[in-house]
Amino acid sequence: MSDQGKIVVLSGGVGGAKLVYGLSKVLPPDALLVVANTGDDFSHMGLRICPDIDSLTYALSDLADPVRGWGRVDETWNFMRALKQVGGEDWFNLGDMDLALHIMRSHLLQSGKGLTEATRILCRNLGVQTTILPMSDDPVPTMVDTESGQLSFQEYFVREQCQPSVKGFSFQGADTARLNPGLRTCFENDDVAAVLIAPSNPFVSIDPILAIGGFADMLEGFDGPVVAVSPIVGGNAIKGPAAKMMVELGLPSSALTVAQHYQDILTGFVLDQVDAATAPQIKALDIEAHVEQTMMTDALSKVSLARACLKAANVVLDGGG
Amino acid sequence: MSDQGKIVVLSGGVGGAKLVYGLSKVLPPDALLVVANTGDDFSHMGLRICPDIDSLTYALSDLADPVRGWGRVDETWNFMRALKQVGGEDWFNLGDMDLALHIMRSHLLQSGKGLTEATRILCRNLGVQTTILPMSDDPVPTMVDTESGQLSFQEYFVREQCQPSVKGFSFQGADTARLNPGLRTCFENDDVAAVLIAPSNPFVSIDPILAIGGFADMLEGFDGPVVAVSPIVGGNAIKGPAAKMMVELGLPSSALTVAQHYQDILTGFVLDQVDAATAPQIKALDIEAHVEQTMMTDALSKVSLARACLKAANVVLDGGG
Repeated sequence: MSDQGKIVVLSGGVGGAKLVYGLSKVLPPDALLVVANTGDDFSHMGLRICPDIDSLTYALSDLADPVRGWGRVDETWNFMRALKQVGGEDWFNLGDMDLALHIMRSHLLQSGKGLTEATRILCRNLGVQTTILPMSDDPVPTMVDTESGQLSFQEYFVREQCQPSVKGFSFQGADTARLNPGLRTCFENDDVAAVLIAPSNPFVSIDPILAIGGFADMLEGFDGPVVAVSPIVGGNAIKGPAAKMMVELGLPSSALTVAQHYQDILTGFVLDQVDAATAPQIKALDIEAHVEQTMMTDALSKVSLARACLKAANVVLDGGG
Repeated sequence: MSDQGKIVVLSGGVGGAKLVYGLSKVLPPDALLVVANTGDDFSHMGLRICPDIDSLTYALSDLADPVRGWGRVDETWNFMRALKQVGGEDWFNLGDMDLALHIMRSHLLQSGKGLTEATRILCRNLGVQTTILPMSDDPVPTMVDTESGQLSFQEYFVREQCQPSVKGFSFQGADTARLNPGLRTCFENDDVAAVLIAPSNPFVSIDPILAIGGFADMLEGFDGPVVAVSPIVGGNAIKGPAAKMMVELGLPSSALTVAQHYQDILTGFVLDQVDAATAPQIKALDIEAHVEQTMMTDALSKVSLARACLKAANVVLDGGG
């Protein structure tokens, strides 16, 4: 499999992390390259927080909380109670154990390491064999234009609970940010077998990655399979504000809207069985439609969807698909 | 009482904090000014940690752990387990709730506030009415010269568990550090009724304060009472390495050694009943000797010793001493 090149996955947080978990179970570690959105990253109480890298890291180290959907399993919250007591900001929840990752990362960054290197060290220490690459070591914060003015992503997402209606998004510094060199090298060395776009929010999880200077060109020059998985099932987002955003942007909230959004780069599109009727419209866009069971509710369904995505990308697994 | 001027207490951590707790129960808040040693302060995993200010803050907010002797009562340690897991340094223990103070302080300092202002904010939020002033807003780290070379204070104290034999101490930057302006003003305005030196380690808790440029002169020009409490009882330190240090420095480990150490500035010295026989030797130094029960094992004994110290400093309490 590895002589075919790597499977590059563009991913946001929770939903993407589920697919990445599945892929990590069917691909050898060196065949998988996960590119994480860092547009959500922010500094909070002096700590550098990278929500999507964290979700991927916890998913791959089997530490993710399966119920809450973010952070660590068996988490405790004594720090937050004390932080409130000493007058700290309490709108962003930091678990006692989760805090270790933030403090260690902030410390590594302060000592001069880049985010890629800091992520590598944290993953290694947690036993994660899959490579997670931040889209860039440069900060490219996602700003959300809303009816109440411009908000940073976490202000919009956590503090305002996605309530303000969105008008658009900008990715500050994306033009000049340096694409992760590991990702660039992979494309330059023709070491990419296929690109997968995880079932993440197209506007605020995947678009920030695509916006990094040079990456769009790189993908356009790539002649292998590019397959996206729809985060919209039956008109609704599995998690998060993707469907709400579509409506606010004047778009139908549907799997078709997602396919149209990625139209220029896709060769294939994986959509859920409940949206099977949309398949002809996807094909009309000159994109192969793959109807699958896309709900990832347990380890087995994550692995199944991972296999389906690889099949859609014409990747032949050593052990058979 | 307040028209007499303030009671200025020079204090290290745990032992000093017990006396300060007692004083806070018998003096109105504006009559007490606590000057905290910051020679132990250090940066750890990107956080600014001020052990003596913390001990004073927790003592005065009734959050101190009475058994462990440092940190917060009912503390939990989930962060430390996770920190070890992600590869962080684990030689210095940070409780889940204690961490809130360190993160909030580090955040305040990073946003441009001085240590005095950060301490004021944290104390206010925890309901502490007594003023705690860091000896200086400038870092003056205590370095310990040992047989194994020079160590920072926390390396010596926590990491090496005070094992290496000490040869001397230096207070880096003490010459040029700016004495806390609040303390300076107090002396310049003749607003000091008496100075108390808490039963803290003379070498590494009190000497750093005395070493700050200008403070020794200020104390020399002060004609009110200056009373120290012996941290050595029956030849042993109540807590910490003071007695061990004396032996290693070639001095008898005794209350008399403490009195001799402060000889130039003291008018009075409070020593324990078990050391009553030493009183004539103290008097021979031209220092009044006050024999008291100095062990502070509960709230009552803290208050009793506080009253005894104030009496030794000729301070008349409003409610009667």
